[in-house]
Amino acid sequence: MDEVRAVVGAGHVSTGQTDRWGYGRDLWPQAQIWQRQGRNPFPPDLVAWPGSVAEVQQLVAVCRKHRVPLVPYGAGSGVCGSAIPEHGGLVMDLKRLSAIRHLDPVSGLVEAEAGLIGQLLEDQLHAQGWTMGHYPSSINSSTLGGYLATRSAGQLSSRYGKIEDMVVALEAVLPDGQLWRSVPTPRSATGPDLKQLLIGSEGTLGVITAATMRIWPLPPVRQFQSYVFPSVGPGLEAMREIMQKGLRPAVVRLYDEADTSLALGSVGLEAEGCLLIWMLEGDDAGVELESNAVSDTCLRRGGISMGRKPGEHWYAHRHSMGYRQAQILPDPTGLVDTFEVATTWANLIPLYDAVRRALKQHAYTMAHFSHAYPEGCSIYFTALWEAENPESSEDAYRAAWDSALSACREAGGTISHHHGIGRQKAAWLKAELGPAYDMLTTIKQALDPDNIFNPGNLGLGPSRWMATGAGRDA
Amino acid sequence: MDEVRAVVGAGHVSTGQTDRWGYGRDLWPQAQIWQRQGRNPFPPDLVAWPGSVAEVQQLVAVCRKHRVPLVPYGAGSGVCGSAIPEHGGLVMDLKRLSAIRHLDPVSGLVEAEAGLIGQLLEDQLHAQGWTMGHYPSSINSSTLGGYLATRSAGQLSSRYGKIEDMVVALEAVLPDGQLWRSVPTPRSATGPDLKQLLIGSEGTLGVITAATMRIWPLPPVRQFQSYVFPSVGPGLEAMREIMQKGLRPAVVRLYDEADTSLALGSVGLEAEGCLLIWMLEGDDAGVELESNAVSDTCLRRGGISMGRKPGEHWYAHRHSMGYRQAQILPDPTGLVDTFEVATTWANLIPLYDAVRRALKQHAYTMAHFSHAYPEGCSIYFTALWEAENPESSEDAYRAAWDSALSACREAGGTISHHHGIGRQKAAWLKAELGPAYDMLTTIKQALDPDNIFNPGNLGLGPSRWMATGAGRDA
Repeated sequence: MDEVRAVVGAGHVSTGQTDRWGYGRDLWPQAQIWQRQGRNPFPPDLVAWPGSVAEVQQLVAVCRKHRVPLVPYGAGSGVCGSAIPEHGGLVMDLKRLSAIRHLDPVSGLVEAEAGLIGQLLEDQLHAQGWTMGHYPSSINSSTLGGYLATRSAGQLSSRYGKIEDMVVALEAVLPDGQLWRSVPTPRSATGPDLKQLLIGSEGTLGVITAATMRIWPLPPVRQFQSYVFPSVGPGLEAMREIMQKGLRPAVVRLYDEADTSLALGSVGLEAEGCLLIWMLEGDDAGVELESNAVSDTCLRRGGISMGRKPGEHWYAHRHSMGYRQAQILPDPTGLVDTFEVATTWANLIPLYDAVRRALKQHAYTMAHFSHAYPEGCSIYFTALWEAENPESSEDAYRAAWDSALSACREAGGTISHHHGIGRQKAAWLKAELGPAYDMLTTIKQALDPDNIFNPGNLGLGPSRWMATGAGRDA
Repeated sequence: MDEVRAVVGAGHVSTGQTDRWGYGRDLWPQAQIWQRQGRNPFPPDLVAWPGSVAEVQQLVAVCRKHRVPLVPYGAGSGVCGSAIPEHGGLVMDLKRLSAIRHLDPVSGLVEAEAGLIGQLLEDQLHAQGWTMGHYPSSINSSTLGGYLATRSAGQLSSRYGKIEDMVVALEAVLPDGQLWRSVPTPRSATGPDLKQLLIGSEGTLGVITAATMRIWPLPPVRQFQSYVFPSVGPGLEAMREIMQKGLRPAVVRLYDEADTSLALGSVGLEAEGCLLIWMLEGDDAGVELESNAVSDTCLRRGGISMGRKPGEHWYAHRHSMGYRQAQILPDPTGLVDTFEVATTWANLIPLYDAVRRALKQHAYTMAHFSHAYPEGCSIYFTALWEAENPESSEDAYRAAWDSALSACREAGGTISHHHGIGRQKAAWLKAELGPAYDMLTTIKQALDPDNIFNPGNLGLGPSRWMATGAGRDA
């Protein structure tokens, strides 16, 4: 504690109950259940707010020296328990590292620090006529570092890519305590891409402190279209056709029947079937070309136009849902969670059916298809269910996840498209990666032999949650 | 030897002098110098041609058991000495693993084995109406596995991406001998992307045996344009403007003054300045949109149209140059090599000037700018020079490289955009990666403690070439 205080100053470290309570959880629904039960099984021992990269490095040195677990922390909006300090130790909140260091208008690049909140980054970019194009629904309570640590996707990813597609250079404190600044370059052939080892490492392989990201001029034109299809199948075919033409609509969202009635109802429309929303942006010529392709394709495949209203409404209200979700939970037995899988187009319907079948035994489920690529697409399930009683909430929560994750793996999907792994999916990460998980374990042990960095996350090192049956005994 | 024979059969292993000579080198100009001097300093002890993934796994087991160096080998067209068995041992030629296992027309994916020659892959895809869009100049003598192992780029990369952008799934024998088949998915958030650790590992972290790659329908329309600009600057601005609009021309090549006179001369044209070639492909609407944007941009920036001939000529003859290069070398003192660096747009001219200045002391140098991205571009230098006498060829070769690589590093460029590292650039890889090189070394030691996999490559483990001063004492 003295050494931490010496690094960050007395005003930037805390062992107070409120901070230990607040930093003992993130937006993982499992943590909401604990919260509801008045429990906080995994509080950190202390929380520190470093004010510079040098201080981050010094904190890493202190933790290494004393073998204290270190959990890098952005804004705590992760939904898989990645930032929960299962083994106590130090939570390092990076939000004071929030500078935009450099905007390079010639190359279209911005270098920003890891603790910068997504919306604040976009606000500053917009003011200068730029956008990074990364708009996750958590944008008001998530950071650049958090995006990178978890392989985040924004709602406009079909045009701008996922966060890992936007990174041009990375700055990080490596597990051995050295500061690495990778060379900014569009591509290179200089051995393995080690940036991609830190991206997605969720705090287990060092601390990302800054990144150089691709940015784009704010698009002058934006257009919405929407169509209703008789079922999921032809809607997916329309999406696939557009993506395989090499076009890049900013948003493509196809709702299944259950999700469609909600989406249409919210704009006072009604129709049987599945709603497909498009948002196109760019310059006049680009949007016109995409617009023609989209309407031709949708009409040819049996879509009925619903105009621009459903898309506009979704866009205007797109940030409300994520935050409202937590408010559904307060009922002592209600449960809600989301699950975002992905696979190739050929395997999409089988994966959709398999996961839906598995969840059906537990929950009311709806889904939409978004984040589309030439070779495949993700599926975003929302599940709502109820435990028998407050005490069995955690068992009910786990049981549904066991079913859904097993079904996804059996059907050949990836268990996460953009929420990450955390504690929630760690056991299935092993199943998905197979022999490569052994490789990851060996790498983790070699780089971080004392298991300082976010121990237990991704299943790397013992997990108290997994071992004790939901942290009951903690 | 007996154990290797038991795995692959007597007909598929050799210790013959011809094979040991042939497999002791690749297309690294350093190896051409040895060849010219009648030397072959680093022959393998034996060469094996496994016929299946199971045999690859068994050969890995044999090498691990006896701690025999193992060098995976594609078609030997690498230009940095990556496939040279510096420490003897077994060269494993993968060309018998050449099957197209599966073409998925719904997802636009092909799964093919690592030893398949690029042109044969394209031929089979073309016959079914598809292309992978990867056309390196070595396409007749390079393999899918080689592309992945070295982070190759094809000439149409501005549209289709580099090889690492096209991979959807990977199959590899990991250093511990296990076979890993990654889950085919467009993206995932399942921890670090371990595929990117094998891609670019140049045989040091296992053996890539197959991959699932994105493919595209053959484009119905192709169009060439070319312009001459008074200097490199406005030509680069035109390239940058198009890429930053988000357009994706298949080819963008800007020749500097030296390279331009060669390129124009070959079609019987003459003009002062710098030639910029565009090749656009896609459907009618897409090519029309790009075509208008390209001609507007080039004319507005002072370009003078040279019609389609220079581009058509380049395209028709694009494979001749790489092979001709080796024929320039037979003169006992002549030297020729290429150097492909990359950086952001803002740093492009400074990097170009720095490398050219460094090479000028040694060689006649020309360059072109290709492989363009929204945030930057690569520069491809061709250097021609002469040693004082045959004996000093190697010193002259090394001296020029020392200068060029140092200059590139000082100017902030990456030392390789797509040729890779091999032995040639290993010392500078360390300089470029900095602390991350220590991380790579730790990973290598942890995964391959006996340094079986291509020892010395990328500077991982002792390099006889680097240690002995050009393999003179070998």
